This record gives sequence, C-alpha cells and structure tokens, in this order.
Amino acid sequence: MNPLKVALLGCGTVGGAVLRLVAEQAADLTARVGRPVEIAGVAVRRPDRHPEVPAHLLTTDALGLVTRDDVDLVVEVIGGIEPARSLILAAIEAGKSVVSANKALLAEDGVALHAAAAKAGVDLYYEASVAGAIPLLRPLRESLAGDQIRRVVGIVNGTTNYILSRMAETGAGFSEALAEATELGYAEADPTADVDGFDAAAKGAILASLAFHSAVTAADVHREGIASVTATDVARAAEIGCTVKLLAICERVPGEEGESVAVRVHPAMIPTSHPLAAVGGAFNAVFVEAEAAGQLMFYGQGAGGEPTASAVLGDLVAVARNRVAGAAGAGPSAYADLPARPIAETPTRYHVSLDVADVPGVLATVATEFARHEVSIATVRQDGHGDAATLVIVTHSAPDAALSATIAALREVPAVRGVTSVLRVEGLS
Amino acid sequence: MNPLKVALLGCGTVGGAVLRLVAEQAADLTARVGRPVEIAGVAVRRPDRHPEVPAHLLTTDALGLVTRDDVDLVVEVIGGIEPARSLILAAIEAGKSVVSANKALLAEDGVALHAAAAKAGVDLYYEASVAGAIPLLRPLRESLAGDQIRRVVGIVNGTTNYILSRMAETGAGFSEALAEATELGYAEADPTADVDGFDAAAKGAILASLAFHSAVTAADVHREGIASVTATDVARAAEIGCTVKLLAICERVPGEEGESVAVRVHPAMIPTSHPLAAVGGAFNAVFVEAEAAGQLMFYGQGAGGEPTASAVLGDLVAVARNRVAGAAGAGPSAYADLPARPIAETPTRYHVSLDVADVPGVLATVATEFARHEVSIATVRQDGHGDAATLVIVTHSAPDAALSATIAALREVPAVRGVTSVLRVEGLS
Ligand SMILES: NC(=O)c1ccc[n+]([C@@H]2O[C@H](COP(=O)([O-])OP(=O)(O)OC[C@H]3O[C@@H](n4cnc5c(N)ncnc54)[C@H](OP(=O)(O)O)[C@@H]3O)[C@@H](O)[C@H]2O)c1
Ligand SMILES: NC(=O)c1ccc[n+]([C@@H]2O[C@H](COP(=O)([O-])OP(=O)(O)OC[C@H]3O[C@@H](n4cnc5c(N)ncnc54)[C@H](OP(=O)(O)O)[C@@H]3O)[C@@H](O)[C@H]2O)c1
Repeated sequence: MNPLKVALLGCGTVGGAVLRLVAEQAADLTARVGRPVEIAGVAVRRPDRHPEVPAHLLTTDALGLVTRDDVDLVVEVIGGIEPARSLILAAIEAGKSVVSANKALLAEDGVALHAAAAKAGVDLYYEASVAGAIPLLRPLRESLAGDQIRRVVGIVNGTTNYILSRMAETGAGFSEALAEATELGYAEADPTADVDGFDAAAKGAILASLAFHSAVTAADVHREGIASVTATDVARAAEIGCTVKLLAICERVPGEEGESVAVRVHPAMIPTSHPLAAVGGAFNAVFVEAEAAGQLMFYGQGAGGEPTASAVLGDLVAVARNRVAGAAGAGPSAYADLPARPIAETPTRYHVSLDVADVPGVLATVATEFARHEVSIATVRQDGHGDAATLVIVTHSAPDAALSATIAALREVPAVRGVTSVLRVEGLS
Repeated sequence: MNPLKVALLGCGTVGGAVLRLVAEQAADLTARVGRPVEIAGVAVRRPDRHPEVPAHLLTTDALGLVTRDDVDLVVEVIGGIEPARSLILAAIEAGKSVVSANKALLAEDGVALHAAAAKAGVDLYYEASVAGAIPLLRPLRESLAGDQIRRVVGIVNGTTNYILSRMAETGAGFSEALAEATELGYAEADPTADVDGFDAAAKGAILASLAFHSAVTAADVHREGIASVTATDVARAAEIGCTVKLLAICERVPGEEGESVAVRVHPAMIPTSHPLAAVGGAFNAVFVEAEAAGQLMFYGQGAGGEPTASAVLGDLVAVARNRVAGAAGAGPSAYADLPARPIAETPTRYHVSLDVADVPGVLATVATEFARHEVSIATVRQDGHGDAATLVIVTHSAPDAALSATIAALREVPAVRGVTSVLRVEGLS
C-alpha cells in the first residue's frame, strides 16, 4: 500500500512529540487510516539542533517541502503568523490538506485560510490550537451541529490559571505568583502572550467562530489580562464564595437589531460551586451551554508536547482518512455571520468593593450613583470599622459601559475613600 | 434544492424532541447540511396518541416507511431489540444511513449492524446511545484516533447516580432512596435496567468497542448493580474520604498472552478528590485516560428528551452531510480485536470492613488469609470497642478472583464476627 506522506513544519515541543508518536503508532495509524502514514520531511530553522530527526528528512526549505509532489498532508507546528501563513497557503494551493496547532494565525486569518481550503477542496483542521488535548473543536463543529450554542466559557490558558490558583492558595500577589510560575516553567521568559490575555483571546475567537458560525477574529475580542488582579481581589472573591479565573467568554447576545456575538477575555469571579471553579493548576476546561443539550463541560490538559500532539494526530487521522476516501470533510460554515458586539454594549455583572467614610447616608449616595447609570444592585454588604466602612456590592447584569461609568463616577464621590476591588462576576444566578 | 428526507421511527420522549428540533432548526439545518432536511414520516405504535404529529406523516408501517424510495436517512428512537434491529437492517439494505439512540441493540449486535452498514456503504451513528447529550463517541472515535486509550471510566446512568447521591446526602438505605427516585420520576416503574446495571453495561460495551477498536458486547461485561449497596457501605466510604458511584470501567489490560480488554460495571468507592466524585444527581460524566492526551473528562446531561435529541441531531447533520457529499464516513474499526478478560482475572482493589473479636492475634489471623490468597494489603485501620473491634482494610490491586476468595475465606474465620462491607475501590493511587 502506498503510504500517505506528511510534511512536518517545525520540530519543537509539539513537532517533536508528533514525530515520536507517528513512529510509535505506525501500525495503529495504518489500521485507522487504511494506508500507512509516513513523515516525508521535517522543516526547521536550525537543523544542527535536531539529532533526533533522521538527517535525510531535515530541511530548512519549508516551502520546497510543502509543495513537493509526493507530499499529501502538511502539519504546521511552527507557530506565529509568518512564515506559517504563507506555508499553509502554499500547501493548500498545492492541494495538500493541512493540520495546524496555530491559534494566533487561525484567530487572525482563519476566514481567508478556510476560503482557500474550500476553494482547493482540501481540509484545514486545528483541534490542537484550543485547549491542547481536549477534544473541543470537533464536538462544537460536529456533535452540536444540530443544536444552538448559547455560551462557551473556558479556562483556556494554563499559565494564568496556575498563577491565579497559586494566588488563591497562598495569598500571594500577582508578581510573586508570576515569579514562581516562571521559575517552575509554567510561564515563559516573556509571559506577555499569556498574562495579558492574548493567547486566551485568540482561542476565544476560534471558539466563537465555530460555536456561532460567524467570522470572529482576535481583533473582535475584548481583552484584559490578569496583571491587575490583586491579592485583595482574590480575598474578596473568597468572602463571597467565589474564586478568580481568567475566562474566555463567547456569547450569543440578543439585541434590537438582531443577534450578535460578544467575545471577551478577562478575569472574573465565579462561584466555587461552578464546575469551572475546581479547574486548578495548568489544566484547561471549557463549559458549553446549548439550547437542547443543556450544560456540557470538557476538561483536560491544555498544553504540553504529548497532549497537544495527541490532538494533532487525531486531526491527521481525519484528514488522512478523507484523503483515502477521496473527499474533504465539511469545513466550518460562517453562514450565520453574526456581528461582533463591543464590550461597552455587552451585558456583564460587577463586584465592587469600596472603602467609605462611616457616615450616615453613604450607602444612599453610593446607591444613587448606581441608579443614575441604570445599574441595578443585587446585593450589598456593609462592614463598619471605626470611622471607616467597607461596602461590597454585586450588581445585576447591565451594559459594561454603564458599569464602568458607575465606577468612574464613584471615584469622584467624596465619601468614597477608595475603590479597592472591581471585578466582573460570572455564573451567579 | 431537493430536501433530504428522514424517516423517524418512534415518537416518544426522544423522538418527540427530535421532531420539534428539526422543525425549529430548519433554517440552520439547511445551512449546515447544504440541503433542507425534512421529516418524511413518523412510525409509532399508537397513532391516535400523537396529536403533535401532522396526520399525513403518521404510520404504523415502520418497515414500509424505512424502505420508501424517497427516504434518505432513518432515525431509530423506538428502543429495545426488536423490531428496532430488523428495521435498521432493512433501512441499511435499502441504502439509507441510520442514526440510533439504542444502546441495548448496539451493545448486543453492533458488530453485525456495522458490517451491514459497511457492506451497503451507508453510515450508522449512535452518539445518543451513551451519556445522552455529551459528545463522547465522536471524540473517542475521531479526536483520539491518533492516540492509545488506556481506560474509560464513566458515570453513565443517571438513575443510579441520583440514588447513590441521595444515600450519601441523607444517610438513607437503598430502598428508601429508590422509592424517592421513583416518586420524583428519576427511576422508572420497573427500575431493573438501571438499578441492576444493565443500562450501564450496554454503554460500557459500546465505549469499550470504540475505545479499544475491538468487538465488545454486553455479554462480555461483568455487571453488578447497586441494590446491595448499604448505608454502611456509604458511611464507610466517607470515613476513608471516598464516595460510592456506579462505574462503567473499560480497561486495556496487559497479560502474558498479550493485551485484553476488561469491562465491568459495579459500585465502587472513589476518592472525593477524583473529578468523577463531584458528579451529582442525574448528570453523567466520563473520564478518559490516553497515552499522549493524558486525562480528559466529559460532563453533561445523560438523559432527557431534549439533550438526547441534541445528540441525535448532531449525528443527523453528520450523516446528512455525508449523503450530500456522496460518501459515507469512516466506521469504527475492530482491527485490534482484543479478547475480553473475565472479571476473575481482572485486577481490582477491595475495601473490606470486618467486625472482629477484640482478641490478641486477630489482625495476624486476618492478614494471613489475605497473604494466603496473595493479596497484598495497602492500609488497615483497627478500632476497638469493648470486646469487639472493627478492621477496615484496603488492598492493593490483585486478580478479582483472589480478592473474592479472600472474602469467602474470611467469613469462615471464627474471630471474624461479620463482614460488614465489601466494595471495590477505584482511583486511589
Ligand atoms: N507547546 C504547547 O504546549 C502548545 C500547545 C498548544 C498549541 N501549541 C502551538 O503549537 C505551535 C508550535 O509550538 P511549540 O511549542 O512546539 O513551538 P517551539 O517549541 O518553539 O517549536 C517551533 C519549531 O518551529 C521551527 N521553526 C521556527 N521558525 C521556522 C521557520 N521559519 N521555518 C521552519 N521551521 C521553523 C523551530 O525550528 P528550530 O527547532 O530549528 O528552532 C522549531 O522546531 C504553536 O503554534 C503553538 O501555539 C503549542
Ligand atoms: N429517554 C431518554 O432520556 C433516553 C436517553 C438516551 C437514549 N435513549 C434511547 O432512545 C430510545 C427511545 O427512548 P424514549 O425514551 O424516547 O422511548 P419512549 O418514550 O418509550 O418512546 C418509544 C417510541 O417508539 C414507538 N414504538 C414502540 N414500538 C414500536 C413499534 N413496534 N413500531 C413503531 N413504533 C414503536 C412508541 O410508539 P407509541 O408512542 O405509539 O407508543 C414511542 O413513540 C431508546 O433506545 C432509549 O434507550 C433514551
């Protein structure tokens, strides 16, 4: 039987594991695909650093490799926008199906890449790009294809989840927890992509596109990182039975001019009874609410060479089977094409903690500011201590702009000595 | 555009929800499939009981409906072995793709049905048959197709999980909790299929077949229900930081004559820190351990008309898309075809609670019985009270036959006044 030939682009953490697994699972892959699957070449930047790869497979000419006539399938695990994008487009145009783990690229340019794949009649799969090993994109795309997804809420970045988990466990501040994460290898030397929410935002865009059949890019995602989360925020959360998580939230929002899609990444308090609250350390989990299916949760390892390679291989088997069957699978459809809703118009809920002067009427003054911005208060707790007091307020849902305007106004109220904690709240009923 | 025509067999809890969703989602289904999807007819036993179905669609001639020339796809939600089997086979032979929610039939006769589907070049999908709305079979079959699954452990029966959850919460015995479940509609009038583990065993067989690419039927599954679980068992579990769950456990077990597959359904103690321990009430969850992916968990609603119909519709979209593309998807392969291992040879761990005479040497006597059966003890706790004492023993892993022989021998030891609780333990490290 003629083997199917695979060009492997990149041989780092993920690529190295893919190379190993393809060799280890050779017999199984043959049985599952119907033909042997063989690595035809491995493109890297610095071939001398790759003694683990048979020398005759190594090349620095990635473009030459993907366009080789004998190559059937391409696995892109280089990462970043270029040269990954050009290489994937060249592969597609040369009639190769592509598997990628590249969230940054898919979130920026997924629409164009899908259009190219559809035109060429080839597959473009990228299960590994979101939540590593967790089967998520295929269930969203296929298992729930007969349902209406309402919300997708995920912990999709292990680094920030590790940092927030440590802050909750030890009472440490952000910088201290980040330093620990860096030392233990959970955070990269430059942690910006994780800590500032760029990584989670890319994943949010990919999830929203598939869940809502709409073209959502990273630029449509409202993004706030965790660098401003304080030990006080975490302590306040615990006081109201909550825990702080960095969430990627994708929602279908009704509106006067029809439905739209709101996608946002920010730290939020969630009740400790929520299934996502128990997701600790570097694990990922994604919670899905669908009209008929109800609540679903998917949990597992979000990163690491082997787990991510497992997802890449699942896709590789799928595109290889399609190749053997002589057909491409159905791509995701953007038929609904709901517009993206800006954060200002997205309904959210806030938890606000204020230091106030303990004088009569202070609660009335504060409540008036909320009312003036048409924000309704769900609960208030007032703790007096000496001539000062603390007000802890949880609002009902209101447009985010109204909530942030309320906070700005409160900062100007003389009786308010300080706004000590502001965080959005999710998953409260 | 020519619509794809669907024959709906059965219009009860699930079928009724399928009918509703197909109507509600008509526009979306058309977009997702590429052609409209239309119900061509609905077969039931008692048409007069179905005012919700347009009269011209109703028929009692299910066989006539599935073999009609204009029917493309068949949804079987009648349940049970016959006539479901004959109808599905007739549909397949007539070239129709089939979606079913029928765990009993798939677990008994999946091999023959798959062979028929492969021969006819049509699809046979049955995501709804295990764990209702939770996307599980597709991830096992496709997302993990490049990985090696080691174990699948599931809470796949909501009725028994509800009963066990109530026993833990209230301290009630089995009969009392069952009575409550029946009253609230969580248990059927005849609860045998759920309580005695038949339902979970069918699901275990389906999961094992897909996870291990082997032909496993319900007859291969060792099955114990929850009727013998006592309030004492539940209390003893709590004492060692565990909770009692009815588990379906599918494992790949190494052995001298090669690997085999062990599938068993029985109540077991699991640590409260295990992700499955928190799955309460009528929810289902399935825990998967794979070589590269590591630990994964899938959580959601295991039953109910709408959730189950969501899974049926996901399959319907998939087979409809394949029909539009003019190809059948890849069926599950039984290429590994590992033999089933009997429970006697399957390694398990036991928790045993004994009432013993508080005399010197009793622990030595008991320990000798374990040693004589080559069962190694992990922990012992001894509580004295007057002239009696309690011994609580957790074993290491040993062949189940050795463990049950040990229990039988202990019942004959004079110093052992009673064996008050015996349960297997899972998920302890
Ligand atoms: N690591 C994870 O846990 C994880 C999880 C999910 C998704 N991902 C995604 O998987 C992708 C790969 O991540 P990774 O962690 O494996 O990255 P990595 O360890 O940095 O490996 C990148 C590889 O790409 C090669 N490369 C870089 N530029 C190249 C070029 N211009 N031409 C050819 N090869 C080039 C590098 O070659 P040299 O070895 O010669 O430098 C290296 O082998 C990224 O999209 C990432 O977002 C990673
Ligand atoms: N209910 C759940 O939550 C759930 C969850 C997962 C899987 N499932 C599976 O889904 C299937 C259906 O379950 P269900 O709860 O919907 O059952 P159900 O409510 O009892 O409905 C069964 C339907 O089949 C019809 N029927 C029975 N015998 C027939 C025959 N000989 N010819 C034509 N129609 C016949 C009945 O007709 P009449 O209405 O005229 O009596 C009824 O409409 C089963 O395989 C079950 O295991 C159910």
